[in-house]
Amino acid sequence: MRRLAAEMNLSVSTISKALRDSHEISIETKRKVLELAGRLQYRPNPYASSLRRKKSNTIAVVIPEVADSYFSFAINGIETVAMEKNYHVIVYLTHERAEREVSILEDLGSGRVDGLLMSLSSETQAFEHIKNLHSNNIPIVFFDRICTEIPTATVSTNDLESGYEATLHLLEEGCKRVAYLSISQGLSIINQRLEGYRKAISESAAGMNDELVIACTEEITTDKALLRQWLSGPGRPDGIVASVEKLATPVYEVCHEMGLGIPGDVKVVCFSNQSNVNILNPPLTTVTQPAFEMGKAAATLLFQALTRRNFNLATEQLVIGSRLIKRASTIGKIP
Amino acid sequence: MRRLAAEMNLSVSTISKALRDSHEISIETKRKVLELAGRLQYRPNPYASSLRRKKSNTIAVVIPEVADSYFSFAINGIETVAMEKNYHVIVYLTHERAEREVSILEDLGSGRVDGLLMSLSSETQAFEHIKNLHSNNIPIVFFDRICTEIPTATVSTNDLESGYEATLHLLEEGCKRVAYLSISQGLSIINQRLEGYRKAISESAAGMNDELVIACTEEITTDKALLRQWLSGPGRPDGIVASVEKLATPVYEVCHEMGLGIPGDVKVVCFSNQSNVNILNPPLTTVTQPAFEMGKAAATLLFQALTRRNFNLATEQLVIGSRLIKRASTIGKIP
Repeated sequence: MRRLAAEMNLSVSTISKALRDSHEISIETKRKVLELAGRLQYRPNPYASSLRRKKSNTIAVVIPEVADSYFSFAINGIETVAMEKNYHVIVYLTHERAEREVSILEDLGSGRVDGLLMSLSSETQAFEHIKNLHSNNIPIVFFDRICTEIPTATVSTNDLESGYEATLHLLEEGCKRVAYLSISQGLSIINQRLEGYRKAISESAAGMNDELVIACTEEITTDKALLRQWLSGPGRPDGIVASVEKLATPVYEVCHEMGLGIPGDVKVVCFSNQSNVNILNPPLTTVTQPAFEMGKAAATLLFQALTRRNFNLATEQLVIGSRLIKRASTIGKIP
Repeated sequence: MRRLAAEMNLSVSTISKALRDSHEISIETKRKVLELAGRLQYRPNPYASSLRRKKSNTIAVVIPEVADSYFSFAINGIETVAMEKNYHVIVYLTHERAEREVSILEDLGSGRVDGLLMSLSSETQAFEHIKNLHSNNIPIVFFDRICTEIPTATVSTNDLESGYEATLHLLEEGCKRVAYLSISQGLSIINQRLEGYRKAISESAAGMNDELVIACTEEITTDKALLRQWLSGPGRPDGIVASVEKLATPVYEVCHEMGLGIPGDVKVVCFSNQSNVNILNPPLTTVTQPAFEMGKAAATLLFQALTRRNFNLATEQLVIGSRLIKRASTIGKIP
């Protein structure tokens, strides 16, 4: 703008007004300014204009990964709301690394985005990086993998009840020895699901069931080796609750390979939002999270905080229920 | 910084140097500045510092969606490279809308990111928004859905050959009437795959095959209704080439529902990167794209442009081959 002003012998403020089509500037002057701006390839700098407006019209979504269909659906829910508000959504991935999460949140400091939607990485144990951003007046809403250390809004699902319901279903279908496939120790949602599993096992006919918690790695070769061991021998599980969707493939592959029928020999239920569970061999019983709805609800809360001066995020703790959808992997005859 | 300067009766430049730990400033002054900065909760504004450095250390990835596993893997490939270079990656989704793409690219104008990796939306027909960004010296690398109108680097796969190979495989397995399930008209990769299909059909024994191109919508209920019609009656297809992974579910579901055996009655091959194709009923023959490798290659090219003054992106046109992986949906006995 300074160059435009110098070349045209006008003040920077006149140039700025002309570019913003102000009524204070004559049509003739505006025409000349625009013409020269075009020739000089002038473009307003978004950072400079953010500094002026103190608004980026952008929100960030910080999530562990996009390879899990829960997060794809959640992002779609978030974008539905953001598009309506004419906001840009930028997605950052932590890849389950606490260190990446810290670095991303530092980068988000003051100014780059107006607000943040976040699901914790599985490694995150300390919360200083989030507290810093929060105390810097960037509104934050947690969804799915929430953080209770920060006094702000959370959108979660009923993981404990879902773990309970899934396990109870297997027990009711006649399983005597139900295993729970776990991943990362730290992750609250996985532990909630585990707690639900434990509750159902402890309530079942005395002595009928032991707890059988298998710590998987999400690395398919390792998990398959682990499952092969557990599924060998006479004391093997006859029911499996898999806590994340990535575990369905190793479970099915190992059962197929070992000649174990699903559901005849082993009944399987999995927490999953994948769209093709119905065409698996056999169709997979799932706990399906309201991923799209959770993303939408989290974004709606964030925009309320961004637009209403006295909106208190800290009092908003939303829980949207998951659904157990029974399919052939737990019921019916051996195919 | 102005407030710090005023409160301490120092110049803004002294404050700035103290905060950057300059050797020009005494240790005692630095200590005092840092102490007050802490009390006033001073944080450097990333936009202001971007303006100064003219570098954001951030690259953008603009893609149609994350619900397709191709893009999840491609993002992982991109992030592998960016992490090494200590860059942040931000992901923008166009949801296949040209209008969103234009708005995102405008937002990316000068300063917000240092470079751009991009895969076109299916709607995009005009390229002014990309030309503008490109002429503004933001390096751009296209991957997968490339744009040949802009003289810059592209990373693509051999879609024509893959369509040819997939169709030929069905013909060799004895199919007499192979259908091609298409989506969006505009998308070059889908048309390339179609061209490969046409080539294989035209080369097959004369009169044995007609072209049979079915325009799907990617909306599951609509596509299932469409497939039900096509798969009824004696002239139905006995082979299907599905051009995107989302089409596998409606094809399988309709065949199951109509009692058509796969591969006995209908053989199916699908362009797909989904990790659970092996546990489908039956396991699905796929054309699998080198998604991770393509993301990695595109990011590597972009960083070469960002770090080497004379690197010419326009001459880099990389093609990485896809693989046809034969499974039970096209070969072997009826399960």
